[in-house]
Amino acid sequence: MLLLNRDEIKWVFTMKDAIEADKLAYSIFSKRKSISPLRTNIESQNEQGNILFMPGYIDEIGVAGLKIVSVFPNNPQKGLPSTPGTVLLVDDKTGMVNCILDGTYVTELRTGAATGAAVSLLAKKGSKTGSLIGTGGQAESQFDAIIAGCETIKEIRVFSRNKEKRDAFVKKMTEKYSDKIKIISSFSSDEAIDDADIIVLATTSNTAVINGDKVKKGALISGIGSYMPNMHEIDEKTLLKSDKIFFDSKEAVLSEAGCIMTPLSKGIISEKNFTGDIGQVINGEIKGRESDDEIIVFKSVGISTQDIVTGKAIYEKALEKSVGFKW
Amino acid sequence: MLLLNRDEIKWVFTMKDAIEADKLAYSIFSKRKSISPLRTNIESQNEQGNILFMPGYIDEIGVAGLKIVSVFPNNPQKGLPSTPGTVLLVDDKTGMVNCILDGTYVTELRTGAATGAAVSLLAKKGSKTGSLIGTGGQAESQFDAIIAGCETIKEIRVFSRNKEKRDAFVKKMTEKYSDKIKIISSFSSDEAIDDADIIVLATTSNTAVINGDKVKKGALISGIGSYMPNMHEIDEKTLLKSDKIFFDSKEAVLSEAGCIMTPLSKGIISEKNFTGDIGQVINGEIKGRESDDEIIVFKSVGISTQDIVTGKAIYEKALEKSVGFKW
Repeated sequence: MLLLNRDEIKWVFTMKDAIEADKLAYSIFSKRKSISPLRTNIESQNEQGNILFMPGYIDEIGVAGLKIVSVFPNNPQKGLPSTPGTVLLVDDKTGMVNCILDGTYVTELRTGAATGAAVSLLAKKGSKTGSLIGTGGQAESQFDAIIAGCETIKEIRVFSRNKEKRDAFVKKMTEKYSDKIKIISSFSSDEAIDDADIIVLATTSNTAVINGDKVKKGALISGIGSYMPNMHEIDEKTLLKSDKIFFDSKEAVLSEAGCIMTPLSKGIISEKNFTGDIGQVINGEIKGRESDDEIIVFKSVGISTQDIVTGKAIYEKALEKSVGFKW
Repeated sequence: MLLLNRDEIKWVFTMKDAIEADKLAYSIFSKRKSISPLRTNIESQNEQGNILFMPGYIDEIGVAGLKIVSVFPNNPQKGLPSTPGTVLLVDDKTGMVNCILDGTYVTELRTGAATGAAVSLLAKKGSKTGSLIGTGGQAESQFDAIIAGCETIKEIRVFSRNKEKRDAFVKKMTEKYSDKIKIISSFSSDEAIDDADIIVLATTSNTAVINGDKVKKGALISGIGSYMPNMHEIDEKTLLKSDKIFFDSKEAVLSEAGCIMTPLSKGIISEKNFTGDIGQVINGEIKGRESDDEIIVFKSVGISTQDIVTGKAIYEKALEKSVGFKW
């Protein structure tokens, strides 16, 4: 059994690798070649928190997997991540667990790569300006993904309501990328998305974090927050003025994502507004972007196929480079 | 996260410890203080095999857990165990995986301890002669459990159809226990159980492996094989002449164990023959053995509560003795 922690994964696996893994995962998912049994939710009786067991299986790549991800909002007070995770891979030829990975980092990577896949597939060619709203646990991988997914990007503007966190995040990203692009800490969401070609939303906000009036023609909006029915980071105007709306999984989005479920139930948007799943674009079943003017929304909530494909891809790279701890 | 392999578990945890853990597990289970969500079964498409994810939660001891156990009959040809397992413990205060244990060995221990618990609770006081039918993967822990559960045992007779495996097993047990008890390799099942106070059945046989005519008054029969509807190691005569029949979980036995399900469906025995679950004896709700003449059957198939309680108890011992690999 190979054990892979965050540093070891970083060592062998880039955001570009993660984007390729997510594209493969979306393709497999849309071909219905992955099995995702119901997740098991255990509610802690001794703390506010839920423990989720998410199994999956993809025979095409010979791997069953399980992500254990917990949501414990009081963890940060204890110096622990609020959503710790562990990913296990099981070889379908022997039934043996052959790899355990830091699932918190796998989640960050594959969630970043969701945006990265959308950027590389659906953003306008030659996009120059990016915008990131939200500077929480997923922000860095989203930032990485904009850069890895779009070679022409010149500037990224960052906004979150907490100025301290925002400035700290911008400082960190500047240290990482200042030689490549210009990074700006914005005073407002409006300023951040003004004239942006790529807009990434990564918040847990219950209300809209952008104003659709400010979204320009040709923009791509990737929303990776709003993964629960009470969350609403994408505003209704943006949905209404968008030409196409893609999902990672329509079924998952329509049962989890408030920013789509609420306007749908109010009749503000209808199923006709939904173009399809991004995997269908990858598989050539439906068209992606057709002109530089189209406004395109990509809404994702995360599917277990991403965890398994990404985990397997990391495992293979680690074996190749003899990285990790053999137990 | 603490990792515990087979040798480390052996180092800190005895069969007597495992018996105490199983007794606690049975008690908790019968008080309905454990949660056992449905298991997920993934069938491999690339090999004959099934991967089972078995989650559970016991708030009383603050632990959720998961056992991944796979059944791959062709594994031994590859030099691998046919039912490899991994046990994970999740702290219900933080949602974090805090321990991963060799689940193959945890299964052996807790399955041995099932017999050990039955022996210590239900065998006739002063039992001298034991009998073990079956010398497969579970045999050693069953053997250990007879000795750990009964201080007066003087002799254990062993039978399995494969003479080579039987002799090798008897040799191994003789090296381990020759200073304590007499160990005999029997030529037949009849010879092995003749005059035996404690009879342990640990086979995957589809037909009866003992003849009830040979079961003497006062005997305890513990059946830990026959965990699938097509398996029938306990014969009907033994069931009919027994005074009491206990289970680990009536619900689980009646949906998994052929040796009870088949005679029940044929009307050879009825629900009236079932005394109750062993946890109810531990909790003082029903009586166990009431005379030295009673023939008592204990049929178990294994419940996830055992894995979690046993895993937690091992984890605590390992922490106490600073054993295991911290990852």
